[in-house]
Amino acid sequence: MGEFELIQRYFARPQAASPAVALGIGDDCALLQPAPGMQLAVSSDMLIDGRHFLSTVNPAHLGHKALAVNLSDLAACGARPLAFTLALAMPTVDEVWLAGFSQGLFALADAHGCTLVGGDTTRGPLAICITVFGEVPKGQALLRSGARAGDDLYVSGTVGDARLALEAFRGTVSLPQAVFEAARARMEQPTPRVALGQALRGVASAAIDISDGLLGDLGHILAASQVGARIDTSIAIKLLAARADYSWADSSFDSKWALECVLAGGDDYELAFTAPPAQRQAVQAAADSAQMLVTRIGVIEQEMGTRLVDQYGAAVTHAYGSFDHFA
Amino acid sequence: MGEFELIQRYFARPQAASPAVALGIGDDCALLQPAPGMQLAVSSDMLIDGRHFLSTVNPAHLGHKALAVNLSDLAACGARPLAFTLALAMPTVDEVWLAGFSQGLFALADAHGCTLVGGDTTRGPLAICITVFGEVPKGQALLRSGARAGDDLYVSGTVGDARLALEAFRGTVSLPQAVFEAARARMEQPTPRVALGQALRGVASAAIDISDGLLGDLGHILAASQVGARIDTSIAIKLLAARADYSWADSSFDSKWALECVLAGGDDYELAFTAPPAQRQAVQAAADSAQMLVTRIGVIEQEMGTRLVDQYGAAVTHAYGSFDHFA
Repeated sequence: MGEFELIQRYFARPQAASPAVALGIGDDCALLQPAPGMQLAVSSDMLIDGRHFLSTVNPAHLGHKALAVNLSDLAACGARPLAFTLALAMPTVDEVWLAGFSQGLFALADAHGCTLVGGDTTRGPLAICITVFGEVPKGQALLRSGARAGDDLYVSGTVGDARLALEAFRGTVSLPQAVFEAARARMEQPTPRVALGQALRGVASAAIDISDGLLGDLGHILAASQVGARIDTSIAIKLLAARADYSWADSSFDSKWALECVLAGGDDYELAFTAPPAQRQAVQAAADSAQMLVTRIGVIEQEMGTRLVDQYGAAVTHAYGSFDHFA
Repeated sequence: MGEFELIQRYFARPQAASPAVALGIGDDCALLQPAPGMQLAVSSDMLIDGRHFLSTVNPAHLGHKALAVNLSDLAACGARPLAFTLALAMPTVDEVWLAGFSQGLFALADAHGCTLVGGDTTRGPLAICITVFGEVPKGQALLRSGARAGDDLYVSGTVGDARLALEAFRGTVSLPQAVFEAARARMEQPTPRVALGQALRGVASAAIDISDGLLGDLGHILAASQVGARIDTSIAIKLLAARADYSWADSSFDSKWALECVLAGGDDYELAFTAPPAQRQAVQAAADSAQMLVTRIGVIEQEMGTRLVDQYGAAVTHAYGSFDHFA
């Protein structure tokens, strides 16, 4: 099967009705036309075999995740998904893999009305590069730079379970089947918080998606906003979904371990965001409209750096890192 | 050196003044704002070590080429470059390589006022994925689908020399040093025909850039336009720049070989385009304004398929292919 037949069979689909997509797949360029008053939000992520996923992963899950991590960037700036391009390098043409990958990819794309408008296919070590486009009203994008001292610090959903699944794959922790499957679904099929991100426009003061770990990604908000943060670890630790039921935890898994997953685990693709205390009702309303749980885990402070405290306000020492592909 | 220091050192630059780039590098998304009445042209290409370039290539040339092949897609639809994202997978952090790569990349980007607005870096087998953005007045993009029977068929510049260089690298042809260096520059540092593409708006009826070979890429215009073409090989063969001086050619290089390079060689990134005969003066004016040579090599016909003829109109038999990553 040649390159063009491959594209035709697995990636060409009827043109979407979206008015923002003036021309889709099949020419030298796609043509996008944001509505008047809208800015185009753009993000690009590359997933590499052995770095971002295990080669044994279900290809439908991989197709889902490759788009999900990009949609998560749109969510973090409050943009509505419009379209994406896909560049795909594959060692061979594996039709079973392609069928699964494209099914997982398009299921998520369709759920968000996000149209594949172009890309590239080539032979090479498995690599997936997606660039995603969304629209956001001019001046309303959620940025990393808007956090102010006194703002509340929130996290959506649950975090740390993707890291827990990775550790189970690595054999450093042993989990009952049901706990493992739930954590594995978080790692392999993250849900981008697209509706929440849009609902937080005009409410949150800053936002980011958690891909490399809560502390590390929060650090980008703090650096861009020139502020610091204090986090209540007694609240944060509850964000690990797998910890809701302790019955499985044995001596290989203690509170420090759970906190490591929550604070330094990556791959959850939840949102970390800040908002002034006056916006607490608006934050809850945004969460309700997106049918999401949000948890207030701390506060933004003038003093730079991140301080972890227990429920009594006493300092908790830590040395949690953030994922870095080259460190 | 970590991921963020790497980006800071080699890829972060002062924000451009372009009004179309509302937000550049450093947040979850970049924000683009095409001018009123403009559409955003988008194209994405991935370059893989060993497939699209030799690992020994000068990194500055590779940085140039990675962006050039994308700018060439903008040229083919007549768009003005605005911005691009870069996703880069590297096996190790090689500072000499990064310095060269970024220098070559930004030299070309600056020449076209094209701003790096975001991307991704990760560890992995060397792979470069660039997505490029340009703007084009609504409804004026050059498409593949506009060729009509009776239109003239043109090619810009010279083609086939990139393929000649590849064959010299492979050892199938032996070239004098000066001829080799000139051909190698065409392969490693192609020039995207950005000014010509924009000058052809409202003049050309269809256009494409020649990346996989003239016949193959012309085939996309013919398929999209539901027409055929006739090419005068006695004119086409003159498009091989290296053939201007025959003195180097020995028995290993005959006319059939030269025609193979012209018709089936890839990697030249010239434009193939069509225009009605009534536009001949306008085509020449567009070429003059872009300081480019353009050559009329044939004609579009109702009958599907491509017919090669000699200067007397007699059929030339051929079996030239087009580059296909999976065939």
